[in-house]
Amino acid sequence: MEDMIKRQLDHRTIREFTDQAVPREMFETLMQVAQRTATSIGMQAASIIRIKDQAIRKELAEICKQDYVARAPELMVFIVDQRRNSEVLKEMGEDPAYAGNYDKFFQAFTDACLMAQNITNAAEAMGLGAVYLGSILNHPGRTIELLNLPKYTFPVVGLGLGYPNQEPQLKPRMAMDLRVFEDRYEVFRGDYLNRLKDYDEEMTTYYDLRESNRRSDSFSLQVVKKFKNTIPERKDMMKYIRQQGFLEPTE
Amino acid sequence: MEDMIKRQLDHRTIREFTDQAVPREMFETLMQVAQRTATSIGMQAASIIRIKDQAIRKELAEICKQDYVARAPELMVFIVDQRRNSEVLKEMGEDPAYAGNYDKFFQAFTDACLMAQNITNAAEAMGLGAVYLGSILNHPGRTIELLNLPKYTFPVVGLGLGYPNQEPQLKPRMAMDLRVFEDRYEVFRGDYLNRLKDYDEEMTTYYDLRESNRRSDSFSLQVVKKFKNTIPERKDMMKYIRQQGFLEPTE
Repeated sequence: MEDMIKRQLDHRTIREFTDQAVPREMFETLMQVAQRTATSIGMQAASIIRIKDQAIRKELAEICKQDYVARAPELMVFIVDQRRNSEVLKEMGEDPAYAGNYDKFFQAFTDACLMAQNITNAAEAMGLGAVYLGSILNHPGRTIELLNLPKYTFPVVGLGLGYPNQEPQLKPRMAMDLRVFEDRYEVFRGDYLNRLKDYDEEMTTYYDLRESNRRSDSFSLQVVKKFKNTIPERKDMMKYIRQQGFLEPTE
Repeated sequence: MEDMIKRQLDHRTIREFTDQAVPREMFETLMQVAQRTATSIGMQAASIIRIKDQAIRKELAEICKQDYVARAPELMVFIVDQRRNSEVLKEMGEDPAYAGNYDKFFQAFTDACLMAQNITNAAEAMGLGAVYLGSILNHPGRTIELLNLPKYTFPVVGLGLGYPNQEPQLKPRMAMDLRVFEDRYEVFRGDYLNRLKDYDEEMTTYYDLRESNRRSDSFSLQVVKKFKNTIPERKDMMKYIRQQGFLEPTE
């Protein structure tokens, strides 16, 4: 099997890295990969904030509520960036507000995610480890202010990269017959806990046996815990998206 | 350089495929790659609708306004899927509405995009070509109905896969110094058309010389055309997202 696919099947999140910096040429290759990533209608509406300043890293780590964020040798935030296109519109004598609707927002959001995963695959191919940071959205308003994100931009996801300094176990995942449908979506009525039984047991063993942060847990218990305890500002996403200039046709 | 990275740097959209089917084992490998993709807080909140029924394919091709959609040997739609987790909540005696907020929506949207790109990289590593179909959102309501998408789900992006039957030229991309910032976003005041000048010329040459659909065009002209002519239903994304049960804290 292709090395690439072996690595994909072996993917795990790496949160702790050695002190070794990511070589400059390697970072440049990653940016070339970002450049070549598929992009909605060719608009290249995602950008990257590479965070080097230690004060900004620390503040981001606080938003993320995770110390390791500040320590990642490379730290990036992928953003919706329709600002560039709005400026092009303006300089072409057109209304920049064409960039401020939800179609443009979601095209750019998709661009940003595809770019992040493409970079992650390239980084792992070069022997680096990666950690996604959805936690940059713990407080969208603080992240926007910290990174000076102007109108028509929005933070999507963060990524930490470096040489791995840990070898975590592979985390079990639910069977794909729960996640792949043919032709139409099918709701399995009153049947999910039963279908997830084996996976719940596998997760209980995983949490019980793993080296750090051992606990008694299962996937179904995690759903309850994580869904009941959402950070309030995270649910306010739309308020901040609107604040950044993305509006509905009626607004 | 790693083969994987060479392929990433050589990525182009493939819209026309040979008649050869994607072998079953290959498809299963792609689903394993999907399973192993990074997922926000472990919730695995993205699913795949694999479309085999020719009538559904044709209807989707109509929504996409592209005949080739119906002809792709493999056709998938990636979706936000918080329905499964909402059912787990319900079966655990909790309120399923915990799944219906924008935090959960965007976590799942991100999951779906990461999964799509991870599959695309694996498919290309196995010699397949890929075309992303953002056009499934030309009319979100029709796509939702066609794929029977229930509450707490939403279509994100489509993907066509198969053995390439075309060799398109590499499409030029803008320089990454326009897309990578250090520490904070910077708006280049009144300077974009100048900064994009070389890229605009490169794009004009590309459109003028390419084998099919030749035309006089540039990136800056494309921004104007594509942003002024957004399909009205695409701008209505939020209406359909709310219709699928994702609400703001105040709603």
